[in-house]
Amino acid sequence: MPALTVAEIADLCGAQVEGHREHLITGADTLENATPKDLSFIANAKAMQAASASHAGCLLVTSAFDQKGTWSLVRVENPRSAFATALAALYRKPKPAASIHPTAIIAPSASIASDCFVGAYVTVGERAKIGASCSIGNGCVIGDDVIVAEGTTLYANVTLYDGVRVGARVILHSGCVLGADGFGFTLIHDRYEKFPQVGAVEIGDDVEIGANSCVDRAALGLTRIGDGTKIDNLVHVGHNCVLGRHVAVAAQTGFSGSVVVGDYAVIGGQAGIGEKVRIEARAIVGGKSGILPSHKIPAGEPVWGIPARPLRQHLKGLAHVAKLTEMRDEIRSLREKVAILEESQRKARPEA
Amino acid sequence: MPALTVAEIADLCGAQVEGHREHLITGADTLENATPKDLSFIANAKAMQAASASHAGCLLVTSAFDQKGTWSLVRVENPRSAFATALAALYRKPKPAASIHPTAIIAPSASIASDCFVGAYVTVGERAKIGASCSIGNGCVIGDDVIVAEGTTLYANVTLYDGVRVGARVILHSGCVLGADGFGFTLIHDRYEKFPQVGAVEIGDDVEIGANSCVDRAALGLTRIGDGTKIDNLVHVGHNCVLGRHVAVAAQTGFSGSVVVGDYAVIGGQAGIGEKVRIEARAIVGGKSGILPSHKIPAGEPVWGIPARPLRQHLKGLAHVAKLTEMRDEIRSLREKVAILEESQRKARPEA
Amino acid sequence: MPALTVAEIADLCGAQVEGHREHLITGADTLENATPKDLSFIANAKAMQAASASHAGCLLVTSAFDQKGTWSLVRVENPRSAFATALAALYRKPKPAASIHPTAIIAPSASIASDCFVGAYVTVGERAKIGASCSIGNGCVIGDDVIVAEGTTLYANVTLYDGVRVGARVILHSGCVLGADGFGFTLIHDRYEKFPQVGAVEIGDDVEIGANSCVDRAALGLTRIGDGTKIDNLVHVGHNCVLGRHVAVAAQTGFSGSVVVGDYAVIGGQAGIGEKVRIEARAIVGGKSGILPSHKIPAGEPVWGIPARPLRQHLKGLAHVAKLTEMRDEIRSLREKVAILEESQRKARPEA
Repeated sequence: MPALTVAEIADLCGAQVEGHREHLITGADTLENATPKDLSFIANAKAMQAASASHAGCLLVTSAFDQKGTWSLVRVENPRSAFATALAALYRKPKPAASIHPTAIIAPSASIASDCFVGAYVTVGERAKIGASCSIGNGCVIGDDVIVAEGTTLYANVTLYDGVRVGARVILHSGCVLGADGFGFTLIHDRYEKFPQVGAVEIGDDVEIGANSCVDRAALGLTRIGDGTKIDNLVHVGHNCVLGRHVAVAAQTGFSGSVVVGDYAVIGGQAGIGEKVRIEARAIVGGKSGILPSHKIPAGEPVWGIPARPLRQHLKGLAHVAKLTEMRDEIRSLREKVAILEESQRKARPEA
Repeated sequence: MPALTVAEIADLCGAQVEGHREHLITGADTLENATPKDLSFIANAKAMQAASASHAGCLLVTSAFDQKGTWSLVRVENPRSAFATALAALYRKPKPAASIHPTAIIAPSASIASDCFVGAYVTVGERAKIGASCSIGNGCVIGDDVIVAEGTTLYANVTLYDGVRVGARVILHSGCVLGADGFGFTLIHDRYEKFPQVGAVEIGDDVEIGANSCVDRAALGLTRIGDGTKIDNLVHVGHNCVLGRHVAVAAQTGFSGSVVVGDYAVIGGQAGIGEKVRIEARAIVGGKSGILPSHKIPAGEPVWGIPARPLRQHLKGLAHVAKLTEMRDEIRSLREKVAILEESQRKARPEA
Repeated sequence: MPALTVAEIADLCGAQVEGHREHLITGADTLENATPKDLSFIANAKAMQAASASHAGCLLVTSAFDQKGTWSLVRVENPRSAFATALAALYRKPKPAASIHPTAIIAPSASIASDCFVGAYVTVGERAKIGASCSIGNGCVIGDDVIVAEGTTLYANVTLYDGVRVGARVILHSGCVLGADGFGFTLIHDRYEKFPQVGAVEIGDDVEIGANSCVDRAALGLTRIGDGTKIDNLVHVGHNCVLGRHVAVAAQTGFSGSVVVGDYAVIGGQAGIGEKVRIEARAIVGGKSGILPSHKIPAGEPVWGIPARPLRQHLKGLAHVAKLTEMRDEIRSLREKVAILEESQRKARPEA
C-alpha cells in the first residue's frame, strides 16, 4: 500500500499544509478510529466537535476550522471529496499486470486489447471485443458479440449474455447478470407462450452496477443504462428500460418493463417501479415506494409511498393516519353531544 | 441470422399475403423503429393509428385492419402471438453443436445424452443424468444425483445443488441457485440450531426461472414448481413451497416456507408471501403486496396491499386515506357547529 | 445414507425406547408422509391428533404423549430439536475426502489446511488462508488476503473479494458475494464521484448466509456479522453495517449503510432498514417493514409497518384504516343531524 506525506496529500488536493509537511500517512479512517498514521476529515459542524479527541495524523478541513491539535491540517473546499481523492491514492491497488490467464478460453474471433487483465477460467465468446486496460475477474462468462469498452472492470463471476455492450470505465460487481431474457409471456390457450427477447443491453460509460444485480435484454430494441449511472446490489432492471445519465438506484429496487428514468433521478432502496412508468429528470423516489404502471413522476418531484404520491402529500397522509385514534374519539364525542342536543330539542319542543 | 420472405412468414402463421410475397425480411422491430427489412405488428386500435407512419416491410394485422401503405400485410387472428412465432424463426440461434467442452468435468457415474451441449468449466456430479438436447452454459455447477430432462437450457453460471430434479424444456437463467438449504433454525439455549434440510427440489416441464433467483430445497419432502410456471429475476422460493402449473411470478417476489400456489395464479413483483399461505388457482396478487402467514387467497380473487385484502376493498381503503384531510376538516367544522348549538341552547334555557 | 435402529436414535437423544429397539429407520418425514422405515415427531397438540393415522416407524414425543400405535416411541424433552439431531445423523453426507482438485488454482503464497476439500475451478488468491476441514465448492473465487477459519463450507460459485475474513463453521450458500464495494457516491459538479471503499468484511463463527446474498465491504473500517447470525437468501447488507450475535434475517431484507443490529434481533423478510438505523437487542422487525434512516428500535420491541412503529400501534392503525368507511358514514350522519339541529334552532329563534 502506498504511503504519502502530508505535503503529497495537500498536493493531490491542490491545497496548503498547516503543520508537519513530511509526516507520513499510510492509511485513513474515521475521526474516532484514526491513528497518527491515518488521514481523516471533518465534513460538518458535528464532526468539528469530535476533532479535538481524534488521534489522526492529518485532517482535511475547510477554512472554517479553527481548532488546534496534534494533527497537521490540509484546508480544502470540500473535505469529503478531497478525502475520497486521497483515499484512492492511499489505497490504490496495483493494477493487475496485463495478462491473460492460461486457463481463460478466448474464442478465435474475439479480440482483447493487449493491456487487459483476464483472470482464470474466464470465457470470451465469438466476435467479442474487449477494449484497452480492462480487467476481467476470474470465472466471468462473456458471450458472443459482447463489446466492452476501455478501462472497464468486471469482478469475478459476472455473466454477460450474447450481444451485451458495456461502456468505458464501467464497474460490474460479482454476480451481475446482464442480458438475460426479459419476462415476456402471453397466455395462449392456457399456456404461457414466450415472447422472444431479441433486443440488446447497452451500458453507458462510467456506470457502476452492484453485486447480483440483473439488467434484462430488450424484447425488441434496447435496454439502456446511461452514462454515469450508479446501481446498487440486487437491483432488477427489466426489459426495454431506459435509465438516463447519472441516475442513482439503491439496493433491491426493481424496474418492470419499459420504464424511462430521466437524468439525475434518485431512486431509493426496495422501490418498485411499474411497467411503462416515466420518472422525469431529478425526480426522487423514496425507499420502498411503489409506482403504479404508466404513471409519470414530474421532473424534480420527490415522491414516496405505495402508491407513490408527492412527498408532502404522503407525509400529510402518514400524519393523518397517526391521528386516527384521535379522530375516532372526536367522532364519538360529537355523536354524544349531538344526541344530547337532539334530546334537549325534542324536550323543548311543544307537544304536537 | 435467417432471412424470411413475406410468403414464408405467412406460411409460418398459416395465413395469406397481401402484397409482395418475395420481399425479404431480416429482422423485426416496433412500428416506430422498423425499417423496410423489418417485420412489425399491429395489436390494437392505438397501434393502428401509427401504422401509416411505419416504414416496416411487412405487418401482421387482424382482418379489421383497413389501411393502405408501402408494407405487405399478413392477416392473422392474433398478431402479437404470430409476431412471437415469426420472431422465433427470424432470430433463431443456431443450436450450439452437440459437444462437451474438454474442460467440462463429468463424474464417471454421470450420464449425458449424446446430443447435449456442455460448455467450458462446467462440472457434473456423480450419478447426475442430463437428458437429450440439453444445453449447459459455461461455468454451471451440477451436483450429485441431479436429473435434468430433455431440451432444457441452463445459461452460464447456474448452480444446481445435489439431488435437484429439473423437467423438460426448462430455461434457467444465469445465477439461478436451485436446492440451497431452506432457512430453518430453532433457538435452543440461546443459539440457533439448524434444522437439517434434507428434502429435494423438483422443477416441472416448460418452466422458466430468471437470473439470480433461488429455489430452496425442502426441509423434508419436496419444494415443487409446476409445469409451465414462469418466474422472473431475483425471486426467492422458500423450502417446501408448492407452486402449481402455469403460475406467473414477477421479479423480486419472495415466498416464505410451505406456501401453496394454485394453477394460473399471477403474483406481481416484490410481493411477500408469508409462511403456509395458500393462494388458490387463478388468484392475482398485486405487486408489493404482503400476505400474512397462514392466510388463504380464494380462487380467482385479486388482492392487493400490505396486508393484502380483496382488491376493491384495498382500493376503497386507499380512496379513504386520500380523503383524510377532508374528513379532518369536516370533523373540525362539525365541532364548531356543535359548540355553537350547545352555546345557543345554554342561552335559550331558562335560568335554573 | 446411514440407517439407525430405534435404540441408536434414542441414544443420540439421551432417551429411552418404548417399543422395538432393533427396528431399522432409514429416513425421516412428516407424520403424514412417513413410512414404517421413517422417523417422525410430534411437537404439539395438533400433531398429536394426527399421530394415530401415521405410518411412521418411530416417533419422537414428549412425556405428555399417551396414545398407542404401531410406532415405537422415543420420549424427549424437545421433539423438534431431537428430530433435528436424528436427521443430521440419518442424512449425514459423507464429508468429501480431503483433496484439492487439480484444476483449483492456488496462489503460491496462499495456505490451505491439509484436510480441506477444494473443488474444481476454484481460485484462491495471494496470502489467503483456509483453515482446517473447510469445504470449498466448485467455481468459488477467493480473493487475495482472504481468511477462512476452520470447518467452514462454501457451496459452489461463492465470491469472496480481497481481504474478506470468515469465521469458523460458517456456511455460505451459492452465489453469495462478500466484500463488494459499498454504495458510496457523492455528486460533485454533476457527476457521481466514487467514495473509495477501502474497509473490510468480517463474518463471525457459526454464521450461515443464504444463496445470492451480498455483504458489502466497509467504506472505512469494518462491515461485521456476529457469531451465530443466520441470514436467508437475497439479503443485502450495506457497507459498515454491524450485525450482532445470533441475529436472524429472513429473505430479501436490505440493510443500508452503517446499520447496527443488536444480539438476538429478528428481522422479517423484505424489510428495509435505513441508513444508520440502530436496532437494539432482541427487537423484532416485521416482514416488509421500513425503518427510516437514523431511527432506533428499542431492545425487545416488536415493530411493524412502513414506517415501522411499535407493533400494537401499527395494528391499531390497521384496524382504524379498516374502519374508515364506517367513520365516513358516521361523519355524514352527524353532518345531517347537525344541519337539522341548526335548522330547528333557526326556526325556534324569535325574528330579529
